[in-house]
Amino acid sequence: MTGKRDALKNKILSDVAGDLAEIEKALADNLAPRLPLVSDIAGHLLFSGGKRLRPLLLVLSARLCGYKEGYEIVFSTIFEYLHAATLLHDDVVDQADLRRGNTAAHRIWKAPEVILTGDFLLARSLSIASRTKYPEIIEIVAEITEEMSQGEIDQLDKKGRLDLSEQEYMEIIRAKTAVLIRGACHSGAVLAGIDEKRKRALSEYGFHLGMAFQMADDLLDYTADVKTLGKTPGADIREGKLTLPLIFSLSKADETDRKKIEDLIQNPDISVKALNDLIDMLHKYNGIGYTESKAEFHVKKAKKTLDVFERSQEKNILMMLADYAIARNY
Amino acid sequence: MTGKRDALKNKILSDVAGDLAEIEKALADNLAPRLPLVSDIAGHLLFSGGKRLRPLLLVLSARLCGYKEGYEIVFSTIFEYLHAATLLHDDVVDQADLRRGNTAAHRIWKAPEVILTGDFLLARSLSIASRTKYPEIIEIVAEITEEMSQGEIDQLDKKGRLDLSEQEYMEIIRAKTAVLIRGACHSGAVLAGIDEKRKRALSEYGFHLGMAFQMADDLLDYTADVKTLGKTPGADIREGKLTLPLIFSLSKADETDRKKIEDLIQNPDISVKALNDLIDMLHKYNGIGYTESKAEFHVKKAKKTLDVFERSQEKNILMMLADYAIARNY
Repeated sequence: MTGKRDALKNKILSDVAGDLAEIEKALADNLAPRLPLVSDIAGHLLFSGGKRLRPLLLVLSARLCGYKEGYEIVFSTIFEYLHAATLLHDDVVDQADLRRGNTAAHRIWKAPEVILTGDFLLARSLSIASRTKYPEIIEIVAEITEEMSQGEIDQLDKKGRLDLSEQEYMEIIRAKTAVLIRGACHSGAVLAGIDEKRKRALSEYGFHLGMAFQMADDLLDYTADVKTLGKTPGADIREGKLTLPLIFSLSKADETDRKKIEDLIQNPDISVKALNDLIDMLHKYNGIGYTESKAEFHVKKAKKTLDVFERSQEKNILMMLADYAIARNY
Repeated sequence: MTGKRDALKNKILSDVAGDLAEIEKALADNLAPRLPLVSDIAGHLLFSGGKRLRPLLLVLSARLCGYKEGYEIVFSTIFEYLHAATLLHDDVVDQADLRRGNTAAHRIWKAPEVILTGDFLLARSLSIASRTKYPEIIEIVAEITEEMSQGEIDQLDKKGRLDLSEQEYMEIIRAKTAVLIRGACHSGAVLAGIDEKRKRALSEYGFHLGMAFQMADDLLDYTADVKTLGKTPGADIREGKLTLPLIFSLSKADETDRKKIEDLIQNPDISVKALNDLIDMLHKYNGIGYTESKAEFHVKKAKKTLDVFERSQEKNILMMLADYAIARNY
């Protein structure tokens, strides 16, 4: 599994290395803040090893649809700035300590400064979106912001609730992750001026990829170590966030084990031993396996939506990215 | 003065009463959140007696430029939602207790919920802006958000600095107030598809109105009582914000009085007596009078920019609004 995963990762990385370097440069060139403090805070998050999945998806989607005007790299920053804006706000909201293996911004600067830098990044995203001259892309950015802010409030409101349903979980991850990834793919298609059918196909590809991606992320919170994860495992539990592995296991556990799981997760200072006990439970009641199968379902759906496109280098990378969404270990 | 001011206010209000009622309705109709909590938080601020100056300015500007398509009311909500979004973030940032005479939202709900509701309002603003189909209006919204977030960070960064210059003050109020008011006027002109000269005139009108408006606001912090102001007077000093009346007086005061003023303003729990002593100093060194004259200068400039327009009901109201910006007592 590890060998296959690494091979897939290396293949994708070698195919997109040039684009990633250009995206990196565009992210630095287009930030353009007036104040050094804003540059410091935004840069701390932006240039700390993000995967650049969202801009990459816009670039690949635009090219897959035959876009030839040459602005896909600069426009791709829209979705990384937007993503970074929401991460800054979410870290303040969740009081997270780590982000991408680094100290979270609001642990270095004051929370108000971090909130306002998030606003600035959102504005940069918007400003570049307006340069596309496509109101449809602005609508997408607006919809993403509406969905993500409400999704985050929804999650906050449901924190600590032990009876969260699978459906409620799906709604939360749709709003907080899938809508943004869908928007990046959709916008690439819009830029290329492609027909509705292919636009919808890429939008659906992004939705399913996003759902799979978030489920894989939620699994990693139980299965990865701090170094590969870039944050402390078990963070979701500490924050009172129930994700699918737990939700499913709770629904299947017998009375005794259910009580045991509930006791484990209600302790905000969960120990490594307790976390391991919990993970044993998630295996026993197949919460891990069930989540994996759900994520695989979305990966299959994502790949299937690409049927409407001819074979191409871009299509090939998008297919690999879908596979990698659930194979990754960070 | 009071009689003249009230007559002006009543004349404006009777001229725009119908529009204000329609704006109020549009603000309620277009909010459309998915979650009751978002509706509660946003509604708490939005429907607590705002003056609706920004939407009104868009409506009047659009009509002054001959806009006849009938969407000026719905599009005017762009600038009230944007304004409300920044107020929610600013109140969290400044830890304010009161807003428009009511308990500030973050004193009722959790700060994270308030921040995210701010994001939602920004997204609503954007979503309606995208419906105009004018990328220029999106650029304006983006620029406003960039300027305001940076202006607020700038102000935060300079808090407590006793050597703030008049120029630095002007830059702060430009970014935090004038840019938004300018954007509302400018967008009205864009909607109407008017020529560059008139677009620029309305944009400049908005800029000068905004500058005058903020200076008047900063004066009110020293001269109004809690009931008319809707927040506690002296709030700026308590927050360590130096505004023009103080900046000017500090620059003119002799050594002894300068020391006295500095001692007064460096006490975060400034008493009513100390505030009154401070106000005496602001009169003694003409900080109040100087700020009034600067505000009047901007009002004159604002009115002058309207010379390019023929006489009309809208022009007349815009002229009165400029006068009222510095005559108001709330």
